[in-house]
Amino acid sequence: MLHLTLNRPDSRNALSIAMVAELRAALAAAEAAGDVRVIVLRGAGGHFCSGGDLKDMAAGAGDAAALRRLSAAFGEFCGAFADTGIATVAVLEGTVMGGGFGLACVADVALAADTVSFRLPETSLGVVPAQIAPFLVQRLGYSQARRLAVSGGRLDGRQALSLGLVHELHAAADLDAALARVLGEILQCAPRAVAATKRLMAKALHREASEMVPEAAELFAEAVLGEEGLEGVNAFVQKRRPRWVPTT
Amino acid sequence: MLHLTLNRPDSRNALSIAMVAELRAALAAAEAAGDVRVIVLRGAGGHFCSGGDLKDMAAGAGDAAALRRLSAAFGEFCGAFADTGIATVAVLEGTVMGGGFGLACVADVALAADTVSFRLPETSLGVVPAQIAPFLVQRLGYSQARRLAVSGGRLDGRQALSLGLVHELHAAADLDAALARVLGEILQCAPRAVAATKRLMAKALHREASEMVPEAAELFAEAVLGEEGLEGVNAFVQKRRPRWVPTT
Amino acid sequence: MLHLTLNRPDSRNALSIAMVAELRAALAAAEAAGDVRVIVLRGAGGHFCSGGDLKDMAAGAGDAAALRRLSAAFGEFCGAFADTGIATVAVLEGTVMGGGFGLACVADVALAADTVSFRLPETSLGVVPAQIAPFLVQRLGYSQARRLAVSGGRLDGRQALSLGLVHELHAAADLDAALARVLGEILQCAPRAVAATKRLMAKALHREASEMVPEAAELFAEAVLGEEGLEGVNAFVQKRRPRWVPTT
Repeated sequence: MLHLTLNRPDSRNALSIAMVAELRAALAAAEAAGDVRVIVLRGAGGHFCSGGDLKDMAAGAGDAAALRRLSAAFGEFCGAFADTGIATVAVLEGTVMGGGFGLACVADVALAADTVSFRLPETSLGVVPAQIAPFLVQRLGYSQARRLAVSGGRLDGRQALSLGLVHELHAAADLDAALARVLGEILQCAPRAVAATKRLMAKALHREASEMVPEAAELFAEAVLGEEGLEGVNAFVQKRRPRWVPTT
Repeated sequence: MLHLTLNRPDSRNALSIAMVAELRAALAAAEAAGDVRVIVLRGAGGHFCSGGDLKDMAAGAGDAAALRRLSAAFGEFCGAFADTGIATVAVLEGTVMGGGFGLACVADVALAADTVSFRLPETSLGVVPAQIAPFLVQRLGYSQARRLAVSGGRLDGRQALSLGLVHELHAAADLDAALARVLGEILQCAPRAVAATKRLMAKALHREASEMVPEAAELFAEAVLGEEGLEGVNAFVQKRRPRWVPTT
Repeated sequence: MLHLTLNRPDSRNALSIAMVAELRAALAAAEAAGDVRVIVLRGAGGHFCSGGDLKDMAAGAGDAAALRRLSAAFGEFCGAFADTGIATVAVLEGTVMGGGFGLACVADVALAADTVSFRLPETSLGVVPAQIAPFLVQRLGYSQARRLAVSGGRLDGRQALSLGLVHELHAAADLDAALARVLGEILQCAPRAVAATKRLMAKALHREASEMVPEAAELFAEAVLGEEGLEGVNAFVQKRRPRWVPTT
């Protein structure tokens, strides 16, 4: 399990260029290691993330190429986080703004404390929530995404829950227990099977179901005959936990 | 009206190879007959369906080709059921797991009793909910589908209702009355118009709206000038029921 | 701000050929003027819109080409309204049927009074909700759209809210205040940034997120270095309203 903490509490964990680079490196290392089954993304100091760091943007003033690189680096991280085969969980408290709103949208599971407050401030600053736009559409649907982009996107926790932006909402005091339960549910599931399922669902987003039958059949057969499938069926027959479920 | 019953109550109606073949044949026959307007899919004995039959999977152990055929046959049935021009209703009680969860996702209308309990156990057995992945994405949206796949997908009736997995939730004693009402609503609608609308919406899923204007205009003109359109407008003017609405 | 009123209260604002042509002309003029930031679409006399005018359809009886033109003209208006860079708001009261249901689906923000009543009557008249099908799928998702099309699509305000068909539901007496608040929120946002965000989200609907990184980076850099971005950051630093926010 990898815990990634957005740790710049003085700026409510604003996403600096350096932080985005560190996040990408940490994700790439986790994927390379091959034994990380869950990534938990959380902010330090009671806030999740206030979005892009305005200081970095000011430093890029007048330099279009620098701004494009900054934006693309963040977009590539969002894409990598959305596409990873590792299960991902975002734990959301306090401020969740702009790019932070986007990160909340790319996690597989989003848990929130009732202190949470969402906002898309970009258009009110004259800029565009550009890299996160596709992920807003994926998470909220096109219609809600467009509505929030046009009107500033302020949401409290209950509204976020009803839109499916977050999957569970808890009192702040109960958040760690909820996270532990969700992690337990995720660890019941075989890691390669989870990765294959995530990949397949991402493909299904832009394809006709009928096109996918042969690939799905292949994946199914591979999974059943693979190490995890054999262990899963044996464990089921023997009424024991499969090897990938941690004891405790 | 065609009532299809999943009828292997000893295994909570697990989907055997034979049952999938029977379902495909029954659907094909209904389409060929041309006068079936609604298909109601329901399980015997208080459960809907516990998913793929583990005995069939065990019989395919070591035989990748057999597993691929089994998986593809189920995927093709799901696709045919999703794509049929006939209106479809799933009546969900008790266990709705794995492949059964997928069947619930492909019906046009899903009614559930409050005894219902959903689960996606595949990844906890080391396998992949492969053929149903596209239908989970269509029914629940990509974000909720991915979350459920990663965390085992346990849902009770109220949760299923709030995600749009089911459209109505009723006390078990009220389920038959709700089904009768829904069937009545469906039978108000002209069958060819329903089929054309379903086809058009399926196309709209992966196309830009602007591309569809000419085809939609053609369909509209055909419908207005066709037998159903003429009858519908005449009935409206004459303040009587159109021919396709059953008396009583 | 442009207020468009569907103003044929005798027919609950049925969409005649003339009315659709006027709506298209008004939208095109607003886009050409370049200074319209919000379009509010509303019906006169306590209803929003009862759908296509049956008199026009009767006049087209037997003339497929005329029906295709009528249908295409409406579909093109829906597409133009969905795609405009100007923010759009629909204010929904009383009857919202057929084509009117479609118009409710294409507005960025949909506010409703609790007098509202939705219906898709097409298939019960033997015809097809053809031009609005893609917009039903965009607003409600494929699954809910298909369900409503098959069963007549009757919804009250609370049901419409829970499906995301409307974004806010208010007592009729509170509707104007809610509209004023939403307009205020929209006017906080920079108009070119809003238009660029809407375009980007529309593209994201049918594309992989990873394909969009370079375009999003370009848009972001342009916005930051453009007139609105510079004004927005200056206003933020100087703790004043940016120029695009009206002083009332």
